[in-house]
Amino acid sequence: MRWTDGFIAADWGTTNRRAYRIDGEGACCEEFEDGKGILSVPAGGFPDAVAEIRSRLGDLPLLLAGMIGSNKGWQEARYVAAPAGINDLVQALVWPGEREAIVPGVSFQGDGRADVMRGEEVQLLGAVTAGDVPADALVCHPGTHNKWASVDGGQIAEFRTVMTGELFNLLKGHSILADLLKEDAQPDDAFARGVQHGLANEDLPSELFAVRARVLLGDAVAEDAPSYTSGLLIGTDVRIGLNGASASSIYVMGRPELTQLYAAALREAGREPIELDGEQSFLAGIREIAKRMP
Amino acid sequence: MRWTDGFIAADWGTTNRRAYRIDGEGACCEEFEDGKGILSVPAGGFPDAVAEIRSRLGDLPLLLAGMIGSNKGWQEARYVAAPAGINDLVQALVWPGEREAIVPGVSFQGDGRADVMRGEEVQLLGAVTAGDVPADALVCHPGTHNKWASVDGGQIAEFRTVMTGELFNLLKGHSILADLLKEDAQPDDAFARGVQHGLANEDLPSELFAVRARVLLGDAVAEDAPSYTSGLLIGTDVRIGLNGASASSIYVMGRPELTQLYAAALREAGREPIELDGEQSFLAGIREIAKRMP
Repeated sequence: MRWTDGFIAADWGTTNRRAYRIDGEGACCEEFEDGKGILSVPAGGFPDAVAEIRSRLGDLPLLLAGMIGSNKGWQEARYVAAPAGINDLVQALVWPGEREAIVPGVSFQGDGRADVMRGEEVQLLGAVTAGDVPADALVCHPGTHNKWASVDGGQIAEFRTVMTGELFNLLKGHSILADLLKEDAQPDDAFARGVQHGLANEDLPSELFAVRARVLLGDAVAEDAPSYTSGLLIGTDVRIGLNGASASSIYVMGRPELTQLYAAALREAGREPIELDGEQSFLAGIREIAKRMP
Repeated sequence: MRWTDGFIAADWGTTNRRAYRIDGEGACCEEFEDGKGILSVPAGGFPDAVAEIRSRLGDLPLLLAGMIGSNKGWQEARYVAAPAGINDLVQALVWPGEREAIVPGVSFQGDGRADVMRGEEVQLLGAVTAGDVPADALVCHPGTHNKWASVDGGQIAEFRTVMTGELFNLLKGHSILADLLKEDAQPDDAFARGVQHGLANEDLPSELFAVRARVLLGDAVAEDAPSYTSGLLIGTDVRIGLNGASASSIYVMGRPELTQLYAAALREAGREPIELDGEQSFLAGIREIAKRMP
């Protein structure tokens, strides 16, 4: 069933969803974003939530990715084991109805590790399809849970999650540092100092406390705390994510306000970041999945 | 003014306070604990909160330690710079009234670091005074903010805070791991595995995400998550706190439910933990301060 007359693509996450109407030529001609993530949908409410998308974008087939396929979503789409490419995703599509398909996530098990992604796989493989990421590359995908993915032969070969965004939000929302973290982080000098500390040291849960101690003792100004703390977390993340990788160019994909911070951190680490807009990569990936559907 | 006829000692923290009536011989003869930490006291309310302590334990002089001396407490008692001993605390006492004294905290600045403690100094120096900790020792003081203190010549020479307890509480209360962390951690096999990972690896913000991924992929059981996660955080904490120290015996001071976890982690690290009850050390310290008051 190839959806040659157009379809609706949706990136349906935990707290938000973004839907796009794709025409027969693969162009995106209408879209919307709202706060109806899967956690806001009541039990049994997904058919209505899907009907609402159609009422806004047209009575078309739907191709859904993200947490909508988790065990808290509409119907569970089990993880495809890495290495995984577009065809693996297509073959493991789950069909809640005849005109609705859900893209599975990807899992990695190996080296004593275990990891999962859901939603990022469409962007990663979409960027490869679009030629924005080469068939062999290291890709960083910042977000609540940053993903470092090794692309090998055009497939997601392995990956590692670092929960940097969530840790920053926890500290900002509920910790002893909350008062100091009200403003947004900027890629400024304080950010660079945090990055350098995180790249060179393995003391994150100690250095986080020092953020406040330095301000109390006059060794730092309170205004620098958001950028320094963000830099400390992202520098630690980059140290973990590079993990001895020799690639000089690193692809950084996601929302521009986040990719710019990771790009700045990668430059501090002596790498050349190449920033990509995650939304365009998502559209490239979802179109490729639709094109290859049986 | 030596309070030879007895006094009231209080360890007054952010969310709790514990008060003790100490008689003329230095024995503790009555005590209570309640949830009236400094954050629960309204502006201008400290005289009333102090009067309430006296109404319960007697009309005696008061010696207060902990966050009561912070900039959110009754009156700020500035940090005494390490190295600091009992006499340094006595000389920097702050007097909100003629019969009320507040013990200052201790700060450390050096090696590019900055750190503060407030409350733990009484316990640390009290344990030295009581002979429970030798004049040269490495002491670990678990809590919301775990302190690793080097005692040198009977003084607090330097120290480092690791915010392990707060991170665990943030994860338990507000993170994607919250569902998995409802139960208390135990020093069991899962805890030991977490400790070993934290001792040997520098990937905390990545391994935290793996806790959930392992359960989703069947590599771990959900029941092990609280102990494994606690072990991971405490193992990381011990790696940071030992920081190349060669001491074979490490003194672990605090509440017994916490010291037992750190003691188990230190054994995994090949050290011999010696557990001490923080409350007894506090009483020893506060008695010594009262005895030396001018």
